[in-house]
Amino acid sequence: MNQNFKKISIIGLGLIGTSILRAIIAKKSEHEDIVTYAYDINPKHRTTVLEMEIATFVCDNIHDAIKEADLVILSIPVGSMKTVASLISTSLKKGAVITDTGSTKNSVINDVSPYIPKNVFFIPSHPLAGTEYSGPKSGFSSLFENRYWLIISNKQTDQTKRLANFFVNLGSTVETVSAEYHDKIIAITSHLPHLIAYTIVGTASDLEADLKNDVIKFSASGFRDFTRIAASDPIMWRDVFLNNSEAVLEMLQRFNEDLSDLQKSIRKKDGDKLYSFFSRTRSIRRKIIEAGQD
Amino acid sequence: MNQNFKKISIIGLGLIGTSILRAIIAKKSEHEDIVTYAYDINPKHRTTVLEMEIATFVCDNIHDAIKEADLVILSIPVGSMKTVASLISTSLKKGAVITDTGSTKNSVINDVSPYIPKNVFFIPSHPLAGTEYSGPKSGFSSLFENRYWLIISNKQTDQTKRLANFFVNLGSTVETVSAEYHDKIIAITSHLPHLIAYTIVGTASDLEADLKNDVIKFSASGFRDFTRIAASDPIMWRDVFLNNSEAVLEMLQRFNEDLSDLQKSIRKKDGDKLYSFFSRTRSIRRKIIEAGQD
Repeated sequence: MNQNFKKISIIGLGLIGTSILRAIIAKKSEHEDIVTYAYDINPKHRTTVLEMEIATFVCDNIHDAIKEADLVILSIPVGSMKTVASLISTSLKKGAVITDTGSTKNSVINDVSPYIPKNVFFIPSHPLAGTEYSGPKSGFSSLFENRYWLIISNKQTDQTKRLANFFVNLGSTVETVSAEYHDKIIAITSHLPHLIAYTIVGTASDLEADLKNDVIKFSASGFRDFTRIAASDPIMWRDVFLNNSEAVLEMLQRFNEDLSDLQKSIRKKDGDKLYSFFSRTRSIRRKIIEAGQD
Repeated sequence: MNQNFKKISIIGLGLIGTSILRAIIAKKSEHEDIVTYAYDINPKHRTTVLEMEIATFVCDNIHDAIKEADLVILSIPVGSMKTVASLISTSLKKGAVITDTGSTKNSVINDVSPYIPKNVFFIPSHPLAGTEYSGPKSGFSSLFENRYWLIISNKQTDQTKRLANFFVNLGSTVETVSAEYHDKIIAITSHLPHLIAYTIVGTASDLEADLKNDVIKFSASGFRDFTRIAASDPIMWRDVFLNNSEAVLEMLQRFNEDLSDLQKSIRKKDGDKLYSFFSRTRSIRRKIIEAGQD
């Protein structure tokens, strides 16, 4: 790892925060001095991270975790961004870079920007990486390996380059996009799939008891995949849907129209239409495999 | 493998058919004499299976593949069951057991039963196993390992026991259920998830070109899982939806109601309702992991 940032603060010690801590340790070269400060509002998470020995300092108050840092990473649910930004505003060091890892970008920019002092650089970001697990014990150092880490910026500056470099050192491929574009893309690739998965698992859990037990017992591949997605952190996802509602509702409307069409084809027993629809979707999969994102 | 069935006919050389052929080879004991007959309507598939050397005989006509067999397995799309059953009706050997591996059971029973001679035992079945790949090269011998193989029967007979034993020898756990119950359970665990996955991938593929390319590029975990499901064989799935339309449409209606509820919660920014919904679905996942079906 290069000498970009020497003092790094991680606020929020869940899957993403602890994976960053672990990746920093895994990637730094032997003689490199990097100091990490870790903080979470939940004292149990702080204790866990202390015991795992993956941060130089685990701080009991957020100001101590922030004040020395060249780089501050907010890896917290997007619904908490505003509160945390207002809390740390006066503790941020002059010249520091602050980023976040939230899954909605317009909302985070609106919530955080007003609290950023003039001599601090706020550059929102979003690693397209995760699992269905949450909490400090779910992190692992290779989480960002070969995954995109999106930086939200309208221009390349020395600071965006520094940050990009840091993410590349953690194993990621960095691309720069606008907040609006990000929120649309992620609505269809991540938010809508999660909503759908939550819905279908919810539908199953409302079935009569016998049927429900056998749904669990005989969960064939399709449903099993959905339950994995629907096991993700409920606070994180509540906040996502509250904070990217516009893009999600737009994509959901399109989805509903397509689903109604298919429903009609099933009712009318229109095999040709079903076949042509199912053939078309296969090619998307092929492109994803070609893009190396599988 | 025990000496249950000595001469086994596999009609349909896709993922399931070739996996059965491979599993028979992998599981049979050294001195056991089992003869397999393989047939597919597609001559290319027959050539492929011949080249892979996974069947004792690859037959160029379906009657030759059937006439000697103690056990006939129809591993073909459910929409072809009626035609194939009518074709083989007079070639079936006295005392033979015939089963199928289709994903819809009421329809298969209606389509196949009229063509089964009195001295032949038709016992429908369904292995809850598969991948998104299709064709003769996609099969592998461990596909059925630790997966349920459902037998559709209202009573235990010597013949159902023989068949169950054969499936157990291929690595499966066997359970007996009624056709009606099967079709309901599979509608929610497999058919609806596939329909939803096909829909969302279709919705994405209708996006404007730029957005669509970046959806592929940045396909985060949720969407990527859906594209895998939506890459499954379109003929098989067309037939499934045509032949289990009643149960699928019923489950789809429940799903649509639940999705409308969540949509409303997002629009109204009702965080409590979203949170409680997302928490509930997590427990289903836990039960599936406990049930060892992950």
